[in-house]
Amino acid sequence: MAKHLKSKRTLRVAFQGEAGAFSHEAIVKLLGPDVEVVPCQRFEEVFATLRSGGCEASVIPIENTLHGSVHENYDHLLHFDHQIVAETSVRIVHNLIAVPGVRLANVRRVYSHPVALNQCLSFFAANPQFEREPFYDTAGSVKMIMAEGLKDAAAIASAVSATIYGGRILRRSIEDDRQNFTRFFLLRRAGDAPLPVVEKGKKGWKTTLVFTTRNQPGSLFRALSAFALRDISLAKIESRPLRGKPWEYLFYLELLGSLDEERVKRAIGHLEELSDMQRVLGCFPA
Amino acid sequence: MAKHLKSKRTLRVAFQGEAGAFSHEAIVKLLGPDVEVVPCQRFEEVFATLRSGGCEASVIPIENTLHGSVHENYDHLLHFDHQIVAETSVRIVHNLIAVPGVRLANVRRVYSHPVALNQCLSFFAANPQFEREPFYDTAGSVKMIMAEGLKDAAAIASAVSATIYGGRILRRSIEDDRQNFTRFFLLRRAGDAPLPVVEKGKKGWKTTLVFTTRNQPGSLFRALSAFALRDISLAKIESRPLRGKPWEYLFYLELLGSLDEERVKRAIGHLEELSDMQRVLGCFPA
Repeated sequence: MAKHLKSKRTLRVAFQGEAGAFSHEAIVKLLGPDVEVVPCQRFEEVFATLRSGGCEASVIPIENTLHGSVHENYDHLLHFDHQIVAETSVRIVHNLIAVPGVRLANVRRVYSHPVALNQCLSFFAANPQFEREPFYDTAGSVKMIMAEGLKDAAAIASAVSATIYGGRILRRSIEDDRQNFTRFFLLRRAGDAPLPVVEKGKKGWKTTLVFTTRNQPGSLFRALSAFALRDISLAKIESRPLRGKPWEYLFYLELLGSLDEERVKRAIGHLEELSDMQRVLGCFPA
Repeated sequence: MAKHLKSKRTLRVAFQGEAGAFSHEAIVKLLGPDVEVVPCQRFEEVFATLRSGGCEASVIPIENTLHGSVHENYDHLLHFDHQIVAETSVRIVHNLIAVPGVRLANVRRVYSHPVALNQCLSFFAANPQFEREPFYDTAGSVKMIMAEGLKDAAAIASAVSATIYGGRILRRSIEDDRQNFTRFFLLRRAGDAPLPVVEKGKKGWKTTLVFTTRNQPGSLFRALSAFALRDISLAKIESRPLRGKPWEYLFYLELLGSLDEERVKRAIGHLEELSDMQRVLGCFPA
């Protein structure tokens, strides 16, 4: 309500976290800087805001090369009827950020998202005096230590969040592993027009789908045969528990190929014969 | 150090959480009440305590029927050289617990493990005045509100943790879904003698293994063929990111069968041909 009136053409894009979060960086990579960002506290809000028309697109993290999949978002992809229309990946660089004037020797507590805390374990091993304090967001933890003016605390977040909130970087790049990337999906409502995505795929297309198999021996193997026997490569498979059926699973597949290709269409038709339920979640440039 | 001297035969069993945690319940189901429990703050400690000889066995949660796998523990199974020797499952019943005298109307904040908070979403939707406060453990949150004597807070945990710490149950069974079970593994050091497990499997055996495939089209399909073509059923497949190789994965398989069976031995031999790395993590009664 307090926001300026924007021109009709300004795209609103929801994401989880505060301004300066890695999802914010993914939005800029995908759509450029001229969008209006809509920060949300929870991932579910990011999906719900898109459904209710509170934004025209949403960006969610789907997997990190160290931590693995963001399983909650796989669940939301199933329950909301949105489409994945693009992907991008962002290299995660973690920095230790404090209120200006606070020195490393003053720091007792370090706030950040639990995943970020877990990605700086060597730093914590070398600094056992630091207490790890889980917080709901990386950039949000910088915002909080600045707002509270904490003199014995620091936050772990992106360099851009230090700039946004006026924090000082005490240590740069404290992540354990430089092979630390997060992949993000850009979501639109089913049926919405395509968006002009800045970062175009150069490696062809990907299609993501979800299915359940009949609960019988060899059913996953048979389901995968629909793709393997047509030389369609899988980029990823992820299993999630099936609600109400203990110890049964849903499978999410990401394949290299487009719905425009005849072999992909036929593979999906074949999978339909072999599965109890299936749904395409999106087809987008890789 | 403050503990009583125990007879030489008392088995020490490590778990994550405080006395009264669901892992504690799993220990009693697996080994009976006459064991000495060793509470740990983090899962990694539970594995490390077993390695260093600080206990003779460890119990870890591996998956929940609503939340999915405990991925961190899959990673630890790979990095520590322990063996899975038994499994059990525990039905998760969540209760809202407060300091005696505190009424529901006084409660503003509710502490518990994030997974437990996420499993009581209908309860929180019906009580929007409650702030959810993530805590490192379910039973530990009861211990904390009791120790601090909090008058405006409650915890979500097992009924037994209310008994242990003297809390009062304000609402019973507030979990969203009664099909809420957690499966636990009992771990021993590789080469340790078998334990007399109370809860014996009645459905044959399971074998758990981990492998990586060559990064080429159809490689997961071929790996699964080693089992499918021998009519060996898979109970579960789980993928995890491969460190240092962005967008490549490790696979954990759980199959129905024992290492004593010829077809299982042959399937594992066959998988060896098809995989870059493989290791059996355990063979245990289902």
